[in-house]
Amino acid sequence: MKVAIIGAGSAAFSIAWIRDLCIMKSAPGSTFSLVDVNEQRLDAAYGLAKRYAKELGVEIKFEKSLDRRNALHGADFVLNTAFPSGHDYTEKMRAIGEEHGYYRGIDSVEFNFVSDYYTILGYKQYQLALDIASDMEEICPDAFLLQVANPIFEVASLLRKEKSKIKAIGFCDEYIGIYPFMMALGLSPADVEFQVSGFNHCIWLTKFREANTGADLYPVIDDWIANKAPEFWRTTEIGLWQETLSPASVDMYKMYGLYPIGDTTRSFTWKYHYNLETAKKWFGHLGGTDSEVGLELRLKRFQAGVDKLFRLTNDPNAKLTTEVPPEKGHSEFSDFIDAAMTGEEKRLFLNIPNNGLLPQFPQDLAVELPVVVSKDGRMKPEHVDPFPKRLVNFVLIPRMMRMEWGLEAFRAGSREVLVEILIRDPRTKSEKQAREAIEAIMTMPENSEMARHYR
Amino acid sequence: MKVAIIGAGSAAFSIAWIRDLCIMKSAPGSTFSLVDVNEQRLDAAYGLAKRYAKELGVEIKFEKSLDRRNALHGADFVLNTAFPSGHDYTEKMRAIGEEHGYYRGIDSVEFNFVSDYYTILGYKQYQLALDIASDMEEICPDAFLLQVANPIFEVASLLRKEKSKIKAIGFCDEYIGIYPFMMALGLSPADVEFQVSGFNHCIWLTKFREANTGADLYPVIDDWIANKAPEFWRTTEIGLWQETLSPASVDMYKMYGLYPIGDTTRSFTWKYHYNLETAKKWFGHLGGTDSEVGLELRLKRFQAGVDKLFRLTNDPNAKLTTEVPPEKGHSEFSDFIDAAMTGEEKRLFLNIPNNGLLPQFPQDLAVELPVVVSKDGRMKPEHVDPFPKRLVNFVLIPRMMRMEWGLEAFRAGSREVLVEILIRDPRTKSEKQAREAIEAIMTMPENSEMARHYR
Repeated sequence: MKVAIIGAGSAAFSIAWIRDLCIMKSAPGSTFSLVDVNEQRLDAAYGLAKRYAKELGVEIKFEKSLDRRNALHGADFVLNTAFPSGHDYTEKMRAIGEEHGYYRGIDSVEFNFVSDYYTILGYKQYQLALDIASDMEEICPDAFLLQVANPIFEVASLLRKEKSKIKAIGFCDEYIGIYPFMMALGLSPADVEFQVSGFNHCIWLTKFREANTGADLYPVIDDWIANKAPEFWRTTEIGLWQETLSPASVDMYKMYGLYPIGDTTRSFTWKYHYNLETAKKWFGHLGGTDSEVGLELRLKRFQAGVDKLFRLTNDPNAKLTTEVPPEKGHSEFSDFIDAAMTGEEKRLFLNIPNNGLLPQFPQDLAVELPVVVSKDGRMKPEHVDPFPKRLVNFVLIPRMMRMEWGLEAFRAGSREVLVEILIRDPRTKSEKQAREAIEAIMTMPENSEMARHYR
Repeated sequence: MKVAIIGAGSAAFSIAWIRDLCIMKSAPGSTFSLVDVNEQRLDAAYGLAKRYAKELGVEIKFEKSLDRRNALHGADFVLNTAFPSGHDYTEKMRAIGEEHGYYRGIDSVEFNFVSDYYTILGYKQYQLALDIASDMEEICPDAFLLQVANPIFEVASLLRKEKSKIKAIGFCDEYIGIYPFMMALGLSPADVEFQVSGFNHCIWLTKFREANTGADLYPVIDDWIANKAPEFWRTTEIGLWQETLSPASVDMYKMYGLYPIGDTTRSFTWKYHYNLETAKKWFGHLGGTDSEVGLELRLKRFQAGVDKLFRLTNDPNAKLTTEVPPEKGHSEFSDFIDAAMTGEEKRLFLNIPNNGLLPQFPQDLAVELPVVVSKDGRMKPEHVDPFPKRLVNFVLIPRMMRMEWGLEAFRAGSREVLVEILIRDPRTKSEKQAREAIEAIMTMPENSEMARHYR
């Protein structure tokens, strides 16, 4: 079995993910082929991966290449974890947006405040995913494309529309937002059967039951809100990625009838994001993961992760399996590979082509829902009950439109469509402002290819 | 044959409409039953209608009543032309909106800048239409409900959702916007075959052909835009209701691939409405029908129409058929009645339940398209080709959402949902602002019933 890993040198492809791959049941005897455009980072990842496998005593063949086409030959799985240009680029784009009157940057918009998740300016991610899929059509058409890099909803939907023959699956660990929530509710995960579904970064608790009796557990949520949440919020500091526990989530639940999980609460309306003061009211002292305060902390932690990677690389005596114990983390792509290779069934939260799974929405987009994966990657998606109409019309369809808008601008290669998207933005006060913001972004040296695409 | 006319005393039910009804082929021997809540205005309409028929020498029986249930007995057609509370009320609501930071009032929003067309605060129109339909279910379940009062898209969709057994049809004469446009293009209507379709106030030129040869006439539009439009705009003052001829329509066509007709151009984005200066750039010297300037002129003309009605009422010697010659005007409800009664087929632009006619949209809303009407009101809707995807995703679905939002607030009777609609409004800078605007509107004495409904 061979896994090609695109963007293996990116910080996102951290040692925790190397670990998750190396400890797979199906890892022994397999080949992991690492690809990156940055040779120094590629070498670092390659070195760490080799050392980790060696410490574990697992027989894995490692390859590395600056050219992804080399890695695709014979691949069974292609993992795309690349985040082109990285966080410095993202923050530079944000600053240009702010100079033009777009608080938090032009890609911080209704239904997406996640600080590195693009819908408008996702060009690099869109193009890379298409290029990988094109190469796969030629070199390894039967392989699975495991898309881990954001924006998952946009990229997985784009692949469904443009490259429907490639078996593309989007992975996001946002569902784990439910675990601290269950803890706050006083529930033990083992006693709970839950289902989350919707679109990536727009998933809702569509089932929440006692595992034994099947009794609905939403009343436990209602009781928590009425009697315990105020005290909880007074005494708990809500950390990064813990928006599921925030007053904003409760507010959304009250209006829409289902509880939002994970990044969903980071991807809502301006009501929670007008300014830092508002964000603190709804998300606690950090103002959420994406506020001025939250993002700074997040980037610090991110940098600490990168530093650790290089520290371990430069310290041949460090024991990697001590630094990062060989216990399975949250990556589901490794679960997917294991289920497909060993045939041991696993229930995973995947982003896959809709094709009628959620009949309230078009066929040609990607939806997120639980899927039982088995031998050879066979997938049995779970039935999902229809969403409440208010949630569909106020949230899911508007979120879907945003995806369609970004992909339409990309498909048409049209700067005019990018401007038109900004015309719909509440921060736009004139057509001139929208045009100038788009032009300023396009003239960034890092965006020269993007500028050629959007004419 | 009996026609019940609800809101017969409203200014909208003008002498031109009395004329159109009286000159129908099917008018002789029929009964017109006029209803209004305002006795003085009802008496005026009743008097004029009787005089008009007498001058024409047509045998029509006229009735009048303050209670619509009286009029419904035996009715074959129920015409709803009522505009509860009228223009003074509308302007008062607009002023309250502006006091709270909502330029042009809270109901002047993306996809609806028409000054008396509500989507958010349409309570009175929604409730009245439902009440009429409920009475009809009981008294005249087989009659047609001809809805002429705005907002047509919202009301016709509401009736489709809530009162699907009543044969409700919405009428709007916006399609006539194509006639001055054909004149500007140098085309004679007799030589042209055209189709407009979409939603009310969001209709697009889905077919534009030479009648004889079937040749596509869109190239004539392209030629006009490239070579003649600049001169046209320099030398022509675009009047009220002539937005089809404006630079805004051309701008929309360039982006969306189909030409917008009629009120469609009045129902678009803030791009054309940021302020009066912007509106003048896109709509000419008036800044369009709905700008500060256009609306003032419009209300003056409206008042002149009302004054004329009362002048004629108070002048028993006036010859009505001279003042308003017996030549068919733009009302299509009279065409519908005539086609249904005489069996003479007519092609009309109607708002009817979608039920798959435009398969890109849900079944349970009203769509506007050409329909051939024949004996007993049988309807043969025309085939409409799919709309361009960009138009669907940037315009038609967002417009549809606005309708769903307003109807959801109404269905739920929820003030919180009204606030949530304003949260999506670019003029909203804080939750507090949205709440205060809604509260201020609800405390207007004219809105006491509305305030009890939205709790």
